[in-house]
Amino acid sequence: MSEPAAPGGGIAKLLNPASVAILGATEGANRVGGRVLRYMLEAGFQGPVYPVNPGRDTVQGRPAFATVGDIPGTADCAILAIPARAVAESLRACAAKGVGAAVVFSSGFAEMGAEGRRLQAELGDAAREAGVRLLGPNCLGAFNAHLGFMATFSSNLLGNLPVPGAVGIVSQSGAFGAHLYSLARQRGIGLSYWVTTGNEVDITLADCIAFMANAGDVNTIVVYAEGINDPDGLRAALDLSREKRKPVIFLKVGRTEAGAKAAHSHTASLAVSDVVCDALFRQTGTHRAETTEEMIELAYACQMGVFPAGNRVGVLTMSGGVGVQMADVSIKSGMAVPELPADLQAEIKGLIPFAATANPVDVTASAMEDTSLLTRTIDMLLDAPQCDSVGAFMTPVAATDEFTDQLVASLAQSRARHPDKPFALCMPAPAGIRARYEAGGNMVFDTPERAVDAFAALARFRAGFERGAGDPPPALPAGAEPVPAEAVGEVAAKAILAAAGIPVPREVLASDPDAAVAAAADMGGPVAMKIVSPDIAHKTEIGGVLLGVAGADAVAAGFATLMDRARAAHPGARLDGVSVAEMVTGGVETVIGAQVDPTFGPVVMFGLGGIFVEVLKDVSFRLAPFGVDEARRMVREIRGFPLLAGARGAEPADLDALAQALARVSAFAAANADRLESLDINPFRVLPKGALALDALIVPKGR
Amino acid sequence: MSEPAAPGGGIAKLLNPASVAILGATEGANRVGGRVLRYMLEAGFQGPVYPVNPGRDTVQGRPAFATVGDIPGTADCAILAIPARAVAESLRACAAKGVGAAVVFSSGFAEMGAEGRRLQAELGDAAREAGVRLLGPNCLGAFNAHLGFMATFSSNLLGNLPVPGAVGIVSQSGAFGAHLYSLARQRGIGLSYWVTTGNEVDITLADCIAFMANAGDVNTIVVYAEGINDPDGLRAALDLSREKRKPVIFLKVGRTEAGAKAAHSHTASLAVSDVVCDALFRQTGTHRAETTEEMIELAYACQMGVFPAGNRVGVLTMSGGVGVQMADVSIKSGMAVPELPADLQAEIKGLIPFAATANPVDVTASAMEDTSLLTRTIDMLLDAPQCDSVGAFMTPVAATDEFTDQLVASLAQSRARHPDKPFALCMPAPAGIRARYEAGGNMVFDTPERAVDAFAALARFRAGFERGAGDPPPALPAGAEPVPAEAVGEVAAKAILAAAGIPVPREVLASDPDAAVAAAADMGGPVAMKIVSPDIAHKTEIGGVLLGVAGADAVAAGFATLMDRARAAHPGARLDGVSVAEMVTGGVETVIGAQVDPTFGPVVMFGLGGIFVEVLKDVSFRLAPFGVDEARRMVREIRGFPLLAGARGAEPADLDALAQALARVSAFAAANADRLESLDINPFRVLPKGALALDALIVPKGR
Repeated sequence: MSEPAAPGGGIAKLLNPASVAILGATEGANRVGGRVLRYMLEAGFQGPVYPVNPGRDTVQGRPAFATVGDIPGTADCAILAIPARAVAESLRACAAKGVGAAVVFSSGFAEMGAEGRRLQAELGDAAREAGVRLLGPNCLGAFNAHLGFMATFSSNLLGNLPVPGAVGIVSQSGAFGAHLYSLARQRGIGLSYWVTTGNEVDITLADCIAFMANAGDVNTIVVYAEGINDPDGLRAALDLSREKRKPVIFLKVGRTEAGAKAAHSHTASLAVSDVVCDALFRQTGTHRAETTEEMIELAYACQMGVFPAGNRVGVLTMSGGVGVQMADVSIKSGMAVPELPADLQAEIKGLIPFAATANPVDVTASAMEDTSLLTRTIDMLLDAPQCDSVGAFMTPVAATDEFTDQLVASLAQSRARHPDKPFALCMPAPAGIRARYEAGGNMVFDTPERAVDAFAALARFRAGFERGAGDPPPALPAGAEPVPAEAVGEVAAKAILAAAGIPVPREVLASDPDAAVAAAADMGGPVAMKIVSPDIAHKTEIGGVLLGVAGADAVAAGFATLMDRARAAHPGARLDGVSVAEMVTGGVETVIGAQVDPTFGPVVMFGLGGIFVEVLKDVSFRLAPFGVDEARRMVREIRGFPLLAGARGAEPADLDALAQALARVSAFAAANADRLESLDINPFRVLPKGALALDALIVPKGR
Repeated sequence: MSEPAAPGGGIAKLLNPASVAILGATEGANRVGGRVLRYMLEAGFQGPVYPVNPGRDTVQGRPAFATVGDIPGTADCAILAIPARAVAESLRACAAKGVGAAVVFSSGFAEMGAEGRRLQAELGDAAREAGVRLLGPNCLGAFNAHLGFMATFSSNLLGNLPVPGAVGIVSQSGAFGAHLYSLARQRGIGLSYWVTTGNEVDITLADCIAFMANAGDVNTIVVYAEGINDPDGLRAALDLSREKRKPVIFLKVGRTEAGAKAAHSHTASLAVSDVVCDALFRQTGTHRAETTEEMIELAYACQMGVFPAGNRVGVLTMSGGVGVQMADVSIKSGMAVPELPADLQAEIKGLIPFAATANPVDVTASAMEDTSLLTRTIDMLLDAPQCDSVGAFMTPVAATDEFTDQLVASLAQSRARHPDKPFALCMPAPAGIRARYEAGGNMVFDTPERAVDAFAALARFRAGFERGAGDPPPALPAGAEPVPAEAVGEVAAKAILAAAGIPVPREVLASDPDAAVAAAADMGGPVAMKIVSPDIAHKTEIGGVLLGVAGADAVAAGFATLMDRARAAHPGARLDGVSVAEMVTGGVETVIGAQVDPTFGPVVMFGLGGIFVEVLKDVSFRLAPFGVDEARRMVREIRGFPLLAGARGAEPADLDALAQALARVSAFAAANADRLESLDINPFRVLPKGALALDALIVPKGR
């Protein structure tokens, strides 16, 4: 749908315009075009603003123009506060005047049925032909708070214009975008850009994310999405954001089937896509928020731009129990609360004899009698190499003017020594006091749990930044075969996997008993025998599999048994013979799958065999292709991972072999995205040394 | 530690006093005793307040008394703002004057080592001897907001006295209690009682909860605990609260092992106790909060006193995406978002042609042009029998004066028709606007997720109220045997279970091959044979178990094999013979356990066999004894429940038989609380019809 996300491209005309025309600007500020002009004037936009209104000489005290053609020079951006039916024509007039980008608020397009879709397609064509980048239609517009550029009529800004800052917001929904705006404003978060994309006939979420990833005045990107119109662009934009070390906090609705149904979409495909969205977020180091509040609190934390090097938290508290609660929450968030070294503990005891010093450090209420003890203890925790983040639970004394002066000054010094260590105070405090702490890059949260959640998320972002794109996906081996056009049997499927570098057991297709006996003898030891037929999918159900067959007589008899059973169960089936394979015992049964998601393309799934996949849905997904390191993370994500690591006294499974196989499957799936419907390796047996695909099913597209 | 929680007993003197003495009252309001008096005067306590200060004639304008003995008449409650060493003596003086309850702020007791523990024990004795109920020591006191009784010096109340309301707060920690106070105040929650219990030498959390359960001016109880000093009292108080239909919201710290370690306690015992705490909360319908914020938001919701009859949510939104998000959150919280009936959908379409009507109902931004459409649609949802709760996501227009008037008036009528249906608005709004909605019993949340979470918790409370204490635990059968003093073998253990009404397979202990053959013949069909010896615990490891033995020759040979293997592996072991039991195949393997928790006493555990317990820790707990209905809920709680319900095409397991066995195990464990260390039934096989304990281990206490 969209143009490639050229950094700063046409979107700069939209979000950093030097001049603006408002089509449909009115005198009354209660109407759409009037309110836009009012906001723009109130916010002090410095460039020329041209109201376009054929019925007036001036609008809100500014000279007005009858048509966009009448404005002097050009306008980088035109805001179209006009009815849907007039939009396409106006857009052409704008283009003729050299306008680079347009904002279209009007509804009455694709959201309104067939006629609306036709109108919208026409609008998209008009924009592309004219070379004008278009935001909307059916959107609530955008703003650039640093520039005072207010291309929105949202009532949430009434008497409540944005405070400039470093957080960018992109939302498909206007109503939700406005809600986020109000919450951010209430939380004291400064904003740079705010964009609602609406029907996305041209500019998508991905375009805006990419723009913000490149923008110097954004350090944190907050995204709300209902659907993904530009999956490749989105992946590229999220990768770019990580490369630029800008955290992306993403709320994607439609997580549950009921949610998906509520979205009036095809349930099944959306439900799968949601799992795939999760995979995309994990691969790109994007934080998927579960709630609106989580988004806001994390945006608040990220805007400070301080990302801890690790997951170890130092906790200072004036209540032992709160320390315990913060430790609980830390562990649940995957953080550690390391015991402090003995010398540091002794030092703290030296200051505050009755303090608990292990970490959490409980300075007790007695420290309030001499608040310098508090600031010195906080210094010690910030200086401790054992703490990557430091949180302090405070009584309201920390919200007094005197103590705020003292602590802010002390923090300025200790934070300068440790610019990578976030510090958070936990206390309800008036906005003025908060602001003084925040000005020094310190966070203030109402509750201790939010501080810990923030530390955990900041550490995950940092890990994602450091990891970057990770190791590249493996190349397919030279002799790799494509997915065939027609369904193939198990033996052929495994041969295709083997050619793609995925290990399979030694196996021979025997067309008569003698060949089977010779193959078994060649392998030595017991063998597994299976009927091979392109017409028999479920071998086990007809007794078509014999395991642990040992000795020439048994192998010969087995051949006859399998052929008899197949003929009896499927009289007309073509029988290719019997496969004879080395028996593989021990290890852990896993399942590797690949399918092609309608939105995101090829995707790889991993899980443990049996109930783990079928009952517990304990699986992990990744977009293909990916490297071995990503595969390792994918494996560790499942709840049943301890079974691979050697639970219950078992030998640990060969995780390297497993990760390599997953990465190779991802390369195979990616190379066959156009030919593949699905691939199932079940079981993929992971041994203490090595791993093998014991059965495989490849379904070509369109079968 | 505490007296039985007599409703209103001595604690009424503490929390509803008619007269108050303040020992250590000072002129300066920055000292402890001075601040208490100041708060009391500011809050307008109506009864007599007697400052006791030997050095002054008046304190803060009130006549002062040299000793408590000098005050006229008596004081229901004495507040002791004096050093630790003077407390016991003063307490005796108070008792002599007829004082009923005392608040002791002083630290320097059990939290300060051995000498402090001695002092504290002395204090407890003094209180009991004197017949004075004692709050503390080492606490931040208490208040009764309706009475203006302010027995606290917490700085959180400075210029910020409580607004009277229906929520009671009990906290062991003073600092955390003060934090909760500030958060509740900030959220506009009215409070009745606020109590911090400190070292709990006399009055415990449980006492305070029971008092509030009986108090007419409390409808919601919020509790913060670090440890449980009075487990039986706590269970009784929580049961009482449910009986009185008062929700209890409980934050118990020490959930993770690290948290427990941070509490400087014995890790293992605390970790077990925490799981048991969970069980207690589930059985009593108590809400265990994970975070401080969750406590506050839920207290806000509960104080409205509206508990929905079921879990079906009607959602009205002005943003389709927010509707999807609310549906997502609802499903994750165990709620339903039912599709509205066709006639109601048609009615809504009649009002707002472009609305999405299935539920969520998206009225789109166009409804803002005529806000009466909004109120009428909200009415329809409240009137719909398909909706137990109704939530509406609003733009800031709902926070304007005009619309607030309109909606509040309309809600007053529709809510009166449906007093059991909670209604919540989701929008950031100024405090004044919020208060107008809240005055009508309507909730206002910042974010849509919080509204849905509240609905879910309110519905769970209602279900708990309706359920009440549930069905009684089963009586032990007449012939039930006690847990023996010494360890017994598997056969004897199963006989004990059988006598307790827990089904076991038919089994015979054979002392020679002929007896084994006769037993097998009597049972018919294949049998399971196991070596029986009080000295061999792990039969499987020495090959001491044979399964599916069929025919007389095989049984006789099996007997010999088992005896030989036992002699070879354990030359000195006493061999009682071989058990011959009917073979049980099919069904689902589960594990039933019982142990005696050091805090809470006998506890029953349930899980599925194998990896479910060992790797996934997928188990549920209940305090013994409990009835069959509670056992059913216990079974449904595990993640692997679908395996019992008939996943993967299997026949469903006999859940009635399983629940009955669990309830009987609970009765057995409760009856043997003093004799039992642990009981393990592993496996307990649940068949399509019936269920059987296939192996059992009973460990008597002290072994």
